[in-house]
Amino acid sequence: MEWKRINRKLERHPARAVIYSFALADIIGAILLWCPFSHVKTLSFIDALFTSTSAICVTGLTVVNTAQDFTHLGQFIILVLMQLGGLGVMTFSVFIALGFKDSLSFSSRLSLQESFLPHFTPEPRKLLFTIFAYTFISEALIALGLFLCFLGHGLGIKVSLAQAIFHAVSAFCNAGFSTFNDGMIDFQKSYAVLALIALAILLGNTGFPIVYELLSFFKEKRHKLSLHFKLTVYTHVALIIFGTVAFLWFDSAGAMAGLSWPLKVVTAVFHSVSARTAGFNSIDIAHFSEHSIYVFLILMVIGACPGSTGGGIKTTTFAVLSCTVWSRLRGFPQAVAFKRSIPVDQVGKAVTLVFIYLLAIMLFHFFLTFTEPNIPFYKSQHEFLGALFEVVSALGTVGLSTGVTSNLNLWGKICIILTMFVGRVGLLSLISFLSEVGHEPRPYRYPKERVMVG
Amino acid sequence: MEWKRINRKLERHPARAVIYSFALADIIGAILLWCPFSHVKTLSFIDALFTSTSAICVTGLTVVNTAQDFTHLGQFIILVLMQLGGLGVMTFSVFIALGFKDSLSFSSRLSLQESFLPHFTPEPRKLLFTIFAYTFISEALIALGLFLCFLGHGLGIKVSLAQAIFHAVSAFCNAGFSTFNDGMIDFQKSYAVLALIALAILLGNTGFPIVYELLSFFKEKRHKLSLHFKLTVYTHVALIIFGTVAFLWFDSAGAMAGLSWPLKVVTAVFHSVSARTAGFNSIDIAHFSEHSIYVFLILMVIGACPGSTGGGIKTTTFAVLSCTVWSRLRGFPQAVAFKRSIPVDQVGKAVTLVFIYLLAIMLFHFFLTFTEPNIPFYKSQHEFLGALFEVVSALGTVGLSTGVTSNLNLWGKICIILTMFVGRVGLLSLISFLSEVGHEPRPYRYPKERVMVG
Ligand SMILES: [K+]
Ligand SMILES: [K+]
Repeated sequence: MEWKRINRKLERHPARAVIYSFALADIIGAILLWCPFSHVKTLSFIDALFTSTSAICVTGLTVVNTAQDFTHLGQFIILVLMQLGGLGVMTFSVFIALGFKDSLSFSSRLSLQESFLPHFTPEPRKLLFTIFAYTFISEALIALGLFLCFLGHGLGIKVSLAQAIFHAVSAFCNAGFSTFNDGMIDFQKSYAVLALIALAILLGNTGFPIVYELLSFFKEKRHKLSLHFKLTVYTHVALIIFGTVAFLWFDSAGAMAGLSWPLKVVTAVFHSVSARTAGFNSIDIAHFSEHSIYVFLILMVIGACPGSTGGGIKTTTFAVLSCTVWSRLRGFPQAVAFKRSIPVDQVGKAVTLVFIYLLAIMLFHFFLTFTEPNIPFYKSQHEFLGALFEVVSALGTVGLSTGVTSNLNLWGKICIILTMFVGRVGLLSLISFLSEVGHEPRPYRYPKERVMVG
Repeated sequence: MEWKRINRKLERHPARAVIYSFALADIIGAILLWCPFSHVKTLSFIDALFTSTSAICVTGLTVVNTAQDFTHLGQFIILVLMQLGGLGVMTFSVFIALGFKDSLSFSSRLSLQESFLPHFTPEPRKLLFTIFAYTFISEALIALGLFLCFLGHGLGIKVSLAQAIFHAVSAFCNAGFSTFNDGMIDFQKSYAVLALIALAILLGNTGFPIVYELLSFFKEKRHKLSLHFKLTVYTHVALIIFGTVAFLWFDSAGAMAGLSWPLKVVTAVFHSVSARTAGFNSIDIAHFSEHSIYVFLILMVIGACPGSTGGGIKTTTFAVLSCTVWSRLRGFPQAVAFKRSIPVDQVGKAVTLVFIYLLAIMLFHFFLTFTEPNIPFYKSQHEFLGALFEVVSALGTVGLSTGVTSNLNLWGKICIILTMFVGRVGLLSLISFLSEVGHEPRPYRYPKERVMVG
């Protein structure tokens, strides 16, 4: 069967398959968006490519106004690209983690997989079905809620339905695109819309493995949660609380000064959730204080949970490194968490990931300061921070911006397009590659020798 | 004997001894500098404390002009503080790495030490003597060279001698203090002075273990260099070349535009060497392009070699992490370099060090943006970058500044004083602590469990 043949090919070269399929979808998307039926005014190819890359990488950075410059068909193309991108990322990362390669037997697969689903590896097709079902059911429920909200705001049935579907998909996929003129800023005082969008973001970026384990936990009445579950959930919740408290502290009298206290709390939670890595904002990012910008940077780098639609280095990577540090300070030679020890090769993987991620931030930030010496924003007081924010946002596929995006010149646009693609596809390939090479047995061992560290 | 008793006490609590002795010297230094005989005009206690901390931590940041605002006696006190600080750091870090604790037998000490001196651990008193001899001989030779140079510049015998001794100590200890009005900017076209200062910096920041191994290599005609030696020297040289090329690339037509090409090369090498972590500059840092500032930041964070007078995370820490990443990409489960494998607990130590170091940068940078909302510099275009540069420079005990230091208010000064102290003493204590707890045997092991990383 064709499905089996494609499946086998995908399984043989997961990294290559990711790169090819994303690049292909990206270019097809760009061409479609470039066609006259997609846009209202003239649209350069680089802007079409930027929008397509931003959509397929579920980043949400925009050089043109999604609401005004695209036709309904153009917006539909963006919707499809986001959905493909979100599903693609989630599926690929789950499959990579489970180590699905046709050359492996079922038993060796069990021993090799990153065991976020302890004692259980579902059949690939069934797993794929579950991911799709989870995605569409979540999106449908959120869309229904948003539809009622938008109706309540007096938008009319057709517009409400279209906007509800677009925003449900955009939020679940952590894409951050909006077909309202000023995005969520239009709804900055609507508790219901903010809460629904935040919920959709969480359904998308908490990661499928957590959902799956939660389902099987209730179904099978198991009382033992996996280490992956505990680490992910603790880190996820801690980061949301950290962001909320920080935003309230630094900007309750600043960017959020005009809001009532309950709304301040909701807005702070909304931005804390959205910074990892959805990219919706109900307040202009440029209005936030420098201290909040700082917090945004941290949240954007850490990003979402693994096996989700979000980007960044991921909560577990951060957790594994934190555990390594904390264990080392307590005197353990290895990383320890919840009375389990984390294998050495996974600590190495986390170190590698973070090292390369920070290197990528530095390089792209560096390029951007080269490409953008003349735009007005760059020359103003935020030059360094604004460019850094832009790159961290693009690499983490977040989509927040202090206003740099709309001022980018040709080379700046190319730089950010590359950043978005590397942040999404490059990272996924790297993870796939690391999962693969980590399991190769080595026939020889080198003798140990100590060096003086620090 | 008193020496033995003190020695035993030091050995029992290396971290505590470091903190107490540095804090004590710091406060005594501050009081001495505060006394009327030390300064020309009025001097607030916070400025005296700032200068004393900067000297004892061999950082070199200054809130007052060392040349104009201190008397000769005041300058001599600064000289003594620098010398004590430099020697103290070098001695402590070497002793910590060798694991000198009186509760350990000689054989267990051999197995525990970070083996930068393979198959050989000298007797403590002899080692101390060698360190002191190396320091004073190096400083004397450099002082002689500088004396001749300054004479050639027509400074007069007495002034030349005083300046030569001050700058030889300041450069060897990587302190970066200068008793010339504009520091090395006065000698920006003197090849000999720049070369001598750079040489003194290298003698100080390449680290005593390298010197010791080199000496014993030639004395004993051994043909096997340790892994520590290879990793340190390769990284050290690579970083110097990296900095030189970068500065030439970014500023040969910028900050260094007025210089001849040979002088441009010497100036670039000088700043590349000085950024890790001496802190002399022959060109105003504020004149460098933003790209060079970037390179400065990287060099300042990595810093000097272990067992030296310099600061930062150290070359070997960076090398161990790079090896971990590179080995992981090549499929090794462990960190591998020069056909040797680096023990897991040392990778953990490096991760812990870098993690805490970066956390400290973020926290202090954060505090500084809080303390300094009103100074003119902060409001100008470099606010974020300038504050970051200042904190990285203080934590790495480098002493370079884009001009922020002289504009600091009271809280900003306190923030930078703390940063300098933590960067010097806190880091040394942390390393000591990590070396200690890493060797505690644990009676139990937790079962392994994998998580999904990335
Ligand atoms: K996004
Ligand atoms: K220094």
